[in-house]
Amino acid sequence: MNIKASIITIGDELLIGQVIDTNSAWIAQQLNALGIDVVRRVAVGDTRDAIIDSLDEELKRNDLIIMTGGLGPTADDITKPLLAEYFGGKLVLNEAVLEHVKSFFERRKRPFLASNGRQAEVPDVCTVLHNAMGTAPGMWFDRDGKVVIALPGVPFEMVHIMETEALPKLRLRFTSDAIVHRSIITAGEGESFLADQIKDIEASLPAHIKLAYLPSYGMVRLRLTGHGADELQLIKEVELFSDEISNRLEKIVVSNEDLPLEHVLGKVLTGRELTLGLAESCTGGFIAHRVTQIMGSAKYFNGSIVCYQEFVKEELLGVKRKTIEKHCVVSEEVAIEMAQGARKALKADIGFGVTGLLSPGGEDRVPVGTVCIAVADEEKTASKTFHFQMDRLRNKELAVNMSLLFIWKFLEGKL
Amino acid sequence: MNIKASIITIGDELLIGQVIDTNSAWIAQQLNALGIDVVRRVAVGDTRDAIIDSLDEELKRNDLIIMTGGLGPTADDITKPLLAEYFGGKLVLNEAVLEHVKSFFERRKRPFLASNGRQAEVPDVCTVLHNAMGTAPGMWFDRDGKVVIALPGVPFEMVHIMETEALPKLRLRFTSDAIVHRSIITAGEGESFLADQIKDIEASLPAHIKLAYLPSYGMVRLRLTGHGADELQLIKEVELFSDEISNRLEKIVVSNEDLPLEHVLGKVLTGRELTLGLAESCTGGFIAHRVTQIMGSAKYFNGSIVCYQEFVKEELLGVKRKTIEKHCVVSEEVAIEMAQGARKALKADIGFGVTGLLSPGGEDRVPVGTVCIAVADEEKTASKTFHFQMDRLRNKELAVNMSLLFIWKFLEGKL
Repeated sequence: MNIKASIITIGDELLIGQVIDTNSAWIAQQLNALGIDVVRRVAVGDTRDAIIDSLDEELKRNDLIIMTGGLGPTADDITKPLLAEYFGGKLVLNEAVLEHVKSFFERRKRPFLASNGRQAEVPDVCTVLHNAMGTAPGMWFDRDGKVVIALPGVPFEMVHIMETEALPKLRLRFTSDAIVHRSIITAGEGESFLADQIKDIEASLPAHIKLAYLPSYGMVRLRLTGHGADELQLIKEVELFSDEISNRLEKIVVSNEDLPLEHVLGKVLTGRELTLGLAESCTGGFIAHRVTQIMGSAKYFNGSIVCYQEFVKEELLGVKRKTIEKHCVVSEEVAIEMAQGARKALKADIGFGVTGLLSPGGEDRVPVGTVCIAVADEEKTASKTFHFQMDRLRNKELAVNMSLLFIWKFLEGKL
Repeated sequence: MNIKASIITIGDELLIGQVIDTNSAWIAQQLNALGIDVVRRVAVGDTRDAIIDSLDEELKRNDLIIMTGGLGPTADDITKPLLAEYFGGKLVLNEAVLEHVKSFFERRKRPFLASNGRQAEVPDVCTVLHNAMGTAPGMWFDRDGKVVIALPGVPFEMVHIMETEALPKLRLRFTSDAIVHRSIITAGEGESFLADQIKDIEASLPAHIKLAYLPSYGMVRLRLTGHGADELQLIKEVELFSDEISNRLEKIVVSNEDLPLEHVLGKVLTGRELTLGLAESCTGGFIAHRVTQIMGSAKYFNGSIVCYQEFVKEELLGVKRKTIEKHCVVSEEVAIEMAQGARKALKADIGFGVTGLLSPGGEDRVPVGTVCIAVADEEKTASKTFHFQMDRLRNKELAVNMSLLFIWKFLEGKL
């Protein structure tokens, strides 16, 4: 039988939309890798009634509850005394935690305040999960064969406690069915086109293997998920279907691994021992930021010249004044000179340039949403124009995805 | 009485953590601005039982339910027939939607498939919310004075339907108490230090005004939230407390508006008619990306030289070989030369440089997590070294925040 889990996130900041919840996604990935199904995620405010209500509800449904948030040292945090009460215990001072909190402040040369001392109080009915990265300890509660884990909401503290304390204990506690995921990343066609192409394969999937379509910014990720007792058998089975879909969609498949586009591109550059240099106007450094999110990108990434003014394009990239005047600064002609200029200035094998108008203002010779990109190697160039129709920030996201895809296609001979 | 709302997000991709939920935060902000309290957010898988169960639960508790996801054209979407059944109706072809879907495909020169035709089927018990940006219509259901709105999960489609269709109808339908938020952004001190400094003010807050501490990457945002019938009176009252807290914490307050740091910096640069040029090594263009997220940044931002290799620092920024050799590439000396070089190469009033080691590998003369930054104007320079202790991506986030803060402090004479 599958172990079912809920994630409860506590904090008004999630309910008024001031903070985006990244903790839940990370926790879900980790539990999933243990074969634990996350079936619900709930966000509630930090009021007594809301927290108790959600605990009641989720414990009724599921075997494991992970709560995050509501454990900080300040007065808006009420979770800890509430948990003590909920599980029939009381708060007691834990000497080990107190010592840790004191040394934490000492090492940082910060004053130790009364409110920090309260961080060392824990319910006497829980197992303490050590928080090496902060002062609020995690807590593990057992009740009627079910487990409730409460963690601080600060992301790196939560991650550290999960990795060092909670996940190893969960692995021992719950053995369960295996879950196997395989993803196929495609670009350039919409969800319904894909569905039509593979509808016979989809119809032939057994009940324990599901297919999902996950579209985002010009790409669609197809994800197969299988459940089963025999993991090795399951992997074989899911991969059989994954291969079948991949072969059918061959022309638009970017990757058979669930990797971001910048990682797929990085692998090709590494494999071919090529270096990349960028010239970014409208994307404002976002492509370089994405490329450098990948560990080891220094092996193939030389740099980017973010040229938010025309004189930077001219002086650092050698774009000609007359090209700008004749064709407009948002044109494939300028993008090509930027790509060639980036290649030269950054001594890279592959140069790339992007220039566009993401939102109204400034340039009026092209419609808003026009983005021109170009890529160049020693021998040839290729360029393309897009007309995006969203708002400024979404047009920027789209421009970055389409740029990374264009460079990848150029390298793979798929343009 | 306050109107209470729940947001239900449908989709396995949220439960396995493959996608981060940004829709809910946006919806929560919009409802909040209408004076509607979001009291719960729930994410469930796209199975019949999970969706019905969550609708039952949330309708029991709240007046308004916004559902997103589960309306796409492919087979993993089961929400629409389920909603028809749940509200006692059946699916019928809507001619207006069909015409829109057909012309949508025509304009994009894409084949119109049978599965696209199904997008035009809607429950006969709902009001259709037109989706100008896509093919899946939004739906509005009324039951016993409560409202359920179902929207597609694709972010820009959801946003567009909310803005043009759902929010105006909600404004007419629900009149409610006002909610007033005021935020104070601080940097450089921890949550418990702040709480200690203002504990008398916090204790004096009336019951209808709450204070929350929201820490993130070296900064803490303090947020006051007031509820009340008389909006103007409430604004006065909340601002009184907000001013009191601001004055008490004067030395560490960055802004009294809830703006990202790059926006605060942009306002100072605009006001002083100064331009900025960056030289980014370890942050890989992330600072430039943040700066250019702000509409109108072209007025004060000249560009960034992302120098992921030493030769780029030397050739484009004029960093001296002997400075690198003597002090190490991660040093304040190199950061200063980068800042001066960026100022010169990008013809900016203010130059900034950042160099660091975010994760193991490469440079071994400094500990992992060392980041050196420097800022320069015509007359002077300032520099600082940080030792971050998180993982690569979090160290990058921290470096960006501390960089933006350092430039802001330099301009404001607060270093």
